[in-house]
Amino acid sequence: MSLSESGNHHPLNGIFYPRSIALVGASTNPLSWFINEFYIEPLLKLGFKGKVYAVNPKGGEILGLPVYRRLADIPDTVEHVVSCVPASQTVGLLDECRQVGTKVLQLYTAGFAETGEEDDGAVQAALIEKARCYNIRILGPNCMGIYNPSAGISFCLNYPQQSGSVGLLSQSGSNTTYIIRAAVVRGVYFSKAVSHGNACDINECDLIDYLADDPETRIIAAYIEGTSDGKRFRKVLEKAVARKPVVIYKGGYTEGGKRAASSHTASLAGNDSAWDGLLKQVGAIRVHSVDELTDMLVALLHMRPPLGPRACVMGNGGGASMLAADELERAGFKLPPIPPDIRAKLKQWIPLAGSMIGNPLDASPLMGIEQGKLMAEAGTSGCEDALRNARYLPGDGGMGDWMATLDAWPDIDFFLLHYSIDSLPGTIRDWAITTGGGPMVVAAQECRLPVATVVHFITNEDAWIPSRKLQQLYSDCGFPLFLSIRGAAKAIRRLREFYQKRPDLIEALHR
Amino acid sequence: MSLSESGNHHPLNGIFYPRSIALVGASTNPLSWFINEFYIEPLLKLGFKGKVYAVNPKGGEILGLPVYRRLADIPDTVEHVVSCVPASQTVGLLDECRQVGTKVLQLYTAGFAETGEEDDGAVQAALIEKARCYNIRILGPNCMGIYNPSAGISFCLNYPQQSGSVGLLSQSGSNTTYIIRAAVVRGVYFSKAVSHGNACDINECDLIDYLADDPETRIIAAYIEGTSDGKRFRKVLEKAVARKPVVIYKGGYTEGGKRAASSHTASLAGNDSAWDGLLKQVGAIRVHSVDELTDMLVALLHMRPPLGPRACVMGNGGGASMLAADELERAGFKLPPIPPDIRAKLKQWIPLAGSMIGNPLDASPLMGIEQGKLMAEAGTSGCEDALRNARYLPGDGGMGDWMATLDAWPDIDFFLLHYSIDSLPGTIRDWAITTGGGPMVVAAQECRLPVATVVHFITNEDAWIPSRKLQQLYSDCGFPLFLSIRGAAKAIRRLREFYQKRPDLIEALHR
Repeated sequence: MSLSESGNHHPLNGIFYPRSIALVGASTNPLSWFINEFYIEPLLKLGFKGKVYAVNPKGGEILGLPVYRRLADIPDTVEHVVSCVPASQTVGLLDECRQVGTKVLQLYTAGFAETGEEDDGAVQAALIEKARCYNIRILGPNCMGIYNPSAGISFCLNYPQQSGSVGLLSQSGSNTTYIIRAAVVRGVYFSKAVSHGNACDINECDLIDYLADDPETRIIAAYIEGTSDGKRFRKVLEKAVARKPVVIYKGGYTEGGKRAASSHTASLAGNDSAWDGLLKQVGAIRVHSVDELTDMLVALLHMRPPLGPRACVMGNGGGASMLAADELERAGFKLPPIPPDIRAKLKQWIPLAGSMIGNPLDASPLMGIEQGKLMAEAGTSGCEDALRNARYLPGDGGMGDWMATLDAWPDIDFFLLHYSIDSLPGTIRDWAITTGGGPMVVAAQECRLPVATVVHFITNEDAWIPSRKLQQLYSDCGFPLFLSIRGAAKAIRRLREFYQKRPDLIEALHR
Repeated sequence: MSLSESGNHHPLNGIFYPRSIALVGASTNPLSWFINEFYIEPLLKLGFKGKVYAVNPKGGEILGLPVYRRLADIPDTVEHVVSCVPASQTVGLLDECRQVGTKVLQLYTAGFAETGEEDDGAVQAALIEKARCYNIRILGPNCMGIYNPSAGISFCLNYPQQSGSVGLLSQSGSNTTYIIRAAVVRGVYFSKAVSHGNACDINECDLIDYLADDPETRIIAAYIEGTSDGKRFRKVLEKAVARKPVVIYKGGYTEGGKRAASSHTASLAGNDSAWDGLLKQVGAIRVHSVDELTDMLVALLHMRPPLGPRACVMGNGGGASMLAADELERAGFKLPPIPPDIRAKLKQWIPLAGSMIGNPLDASPLMGIEQGKLMAEAGTSGCEDALRNARYLPGDGGMGDWMATLDAWPDIDFFLLHYSIDSLPGTIRDWAITTGGGPMVVAAQECRLPVATVVHFITNEDAWIPSRKLQQLYSDCGFPLFLSIRGAAKAIRRLREFYQKRPDLIEALHR
C-alpha cells in the first residue's frame, strides 16, 4: 500500500509509509546480529516494497545487501532511518540524515534521559533541538519503532503479515511484542503498532490523534507511562473516544511504578487518581496489565455485548465449572438456576451420571458421545476434519438439540463455554482434545445469544501443544477466546459497561 | 511401603495402603478404555506391589490380566474395590465386597445425590446404610479416588512416582488432576492426594484429621465445596493447623457457586462469611482458585519468608519491570528507590543504555554479556551445560558482583527475579532463553535474602517449549517458581501474613 492508498491525510501518515529505510548500525558481529533481525530481515521477508539500506563503517555485505560505510554515502533519498549506534553518535547522525532527505529518525538507541544521568539528558535535549531545526521527526529514543503490516514494515520476523483493526501505541517495546504475539494467537490483528519509548518528539498525543483519524484503525490500544502535555492529551483522547473504543493500560500507577516509569522512559507518571478521573471522564476503557489489555481487545473485536448480566456456563469438569460460577458471580454476573422445563429437556440427551445439568453445566458425557460419533465416522486420524465439517442442529439428538434448548432459555444473556485440559486424568491426546472440546463451540455458531469461549487449565507441553488446535478452532468459529475464566469475566464486564455508555461504538464494530 | 512402614496409626491409614485392588467395570470397549487407564495401568506401571484384579461380566483379558466375571469370583481377599459400574448396581456390589473381605469401596461411579433426582439420592442413602452394616468404608461416590506415590497407587499415568510433602484432598476429581500436574511442573510433590467427591462416608473431616496425623504430610491443601458437620470440621481444622500449614480453596463462595456445589457433589456450600470467619479464626490460609492454591504451595515449600515488605525486582524488559513494580506495590509491598552508592557500584558492570538501574532493575544488557561469555566458552550447543556448571561470585566482574551488591543493600527484604519470554522481539531460540534468563537465578543461590522467581509472558509454542527448560532451572536452583507476577505477589503476601502469625510452622518447613 503506498502513501496515497492509505487514505489517511494526517500529517503523521508518512512515518508509516516510508519509501526507503536505512539501518545505521547494521551488525556483522554474531552477538549483535539481532539488530539485523529486527530492522532488515523483516523488511526483506514481509513484503516491504521500498528500498532497504544497511550502514556500518566496516562495509561488506549483510543479508545480501551491500553495506554503506556512512548514511550519507547512500546515493538516494532515505526517508526513514533507524539508529542502532551509540547515543553519543546520534546528534552527528542527524547531519547525515539531513543530507539524504530523511523525514523520520527512529532510535532503537537507548541511553538518553531515561538513565537519569545529567549528560544523557543533555544529549537527548541536543538531539531534539537539532532535529527540529532540520525538520526531522524523532521516534523514540529507546524504542522498537513501527509495525505496519499493510506496508510490510515490522521489527519482528514473526509478527503477522496480515493486517487488522487494532492500532497500538506503547512506550514499552517489550510490551508491544508481547501484546502482538498474545493477540494474534486469539485472532486479533493490528492496523499499526508503534513502540515510541521516551517519546521526546512523536508522543502519545500525536499517535492517538493519528490513530483516531486512521481509517484502518477501529480500536485504539495504548500502553502509556506518562504524558508531558496533559491538556493536549485530554483533547486527543476526547477526539479518539468520540470515534472508536480506546483501551488504556497506564503503567506506573503505584509509587514504585511511578519511579520505574522515570527510569524506563523518563516519563512523568503523574498522580494516579488524576489519571483515573481523566480516563473515566473521557470514557476510555482502563485496564491494569498487558493480559487485561489483550483480553479487552479480544472482547471488543469478537464478542457481541451481552444485553444483561445473566450468564449460562457450560464446559467440562466439575472443578472448572465451580470456578467459572464463582468467578463470574464475583465479577458481577448472575448464573440463574436452570428451570425444570429446560432441565427436563436436556435430560433426554445425556446420562445424569457425570453431568451437571444446572447452571453451570458440566456436559462431559455429552461431549464424549459427540466425540464417539466423530470417531465412528472418521477414526482418530480423520475425526478433527469431520468436526470442522460437522453441523449441530436442532433435531440431531445431541449437541445441536442441547445448545438450541439452552439458547431458547429466556432468562440468560450470554454463554460462557469453557474447556479445561489438564483436569482430564487420562493421557492427553491431540485429537481427543479437539473433538472433545469442539462440538459445543461449533454448535454455538447457531446460537442467538453472545458467546465467550475459554480454553484453560494447561500446565505442561502434553496439554499445551494440543490446546493450540482447540484455541484455533474456537477463534475460527468467530468467538472471543480467553485463556482463563477470571480474564474472561473481567473483560466481559468491561465490555458490558462500555456498551452501556457507548452502544454506538460497539455497534459500529460489529457492522 | 507397607502398612506398617507408613508410620501412621490413624484408623484411616489402611485406605492408602491396600494389599489388593480390583476394578469392577474394567472395560473392553475402546470408547471407555480410559477406565482401565485410570485404575489398572497406573498400578501395573507405577510400582504398586499388591495384587491387581479386573472384573467384567464378559471375562477375557485386559492389559495382561485375566478378567473375572464377578468380584466374588476372585479367590482372594480384595481390600480395595473401585466401582465403575452404573449406580444402580452399586448396592448389590456391596454384597460381593463383603464376600471378598473388602475394606473400602471407592466409587468412580456417579449419578447419586448430586443429580438432584430423588431416586438417585435414595440409592446413595441405601448404599451408605448397607456399607455401615457391613463395616465397609465408602470413598465417593463421584470421585477419582486415591493417589499415594509411596505405595504406587495412582489414577493417572502421568502423576509422578516421586513422593512429596503436600497432602491434598479435593471434592473435584478434575481439580485434583489439575493441581497435581500444575504443582509438579514447579517442583511440588505430594504425600497423598484424595479425590473424595460426594463424601457420603469418608469426608473432609476424616481426611484432614488423617493428614494432620500423617508424618509424610507437611502441608495440607484442600479443595472443599461444603461440610455436613461444621462442629467436627472446626475441630479437625484446629488440630491440623496446630501442626502444619493448611491451605483451603473453598468452592461455591458465591450464590451461583453454592447452587453449583449442590449439583456437583451434593454439597451444602454454606454461608460464605461464616466460612471466611471460621478459616480466619482457625488460622487456615484461604485462596480463591486452583491457581492461587498451587501458587501458595510453591511459596510455602520453596520460599523463605521475607522479614519485611520491601522488594527488589530484577528481570528483563521495561514493560515487564513496570508491571512487576505496580503489581507488587498494589499487593502491599514496597520497592525502595535504589540508593546512589548501590547504583554507582552497579554502573561499573553494565552499560546504562538499555538498562534500568533503579528498582525495578532491567538488567537485559548484563544478561546479554553473561550469555556471550557462556557462548564463547561452550558454543550454542554446550552453553546450557556451561550455565549449569557456572558459579557467579563476588569479584567476577559480572552477575556475581551484581547480585552480591544488591544482596548487601540493607533496605530490602527479598528479591523477585523475573524473565519474560514473548517480549523479546527476536526469534525465540531454546538455548538463548536458558542462558539469557539463567545466570541471575544461578547467581541468586549465593544470596542471603529470600528469592522468588517468575517465568512469564508466554504466548505460543515458540516460547512455551523453551520456557520449560528455564522453569526447570529455576526450580532446580531451589527457588519458588511462579508463572505470573500477579500470582507471585499474592502468594508472597499470604506467605508473609501466615509467617507473622505462625513463624513456628514456617520455620519447621524449612528445617
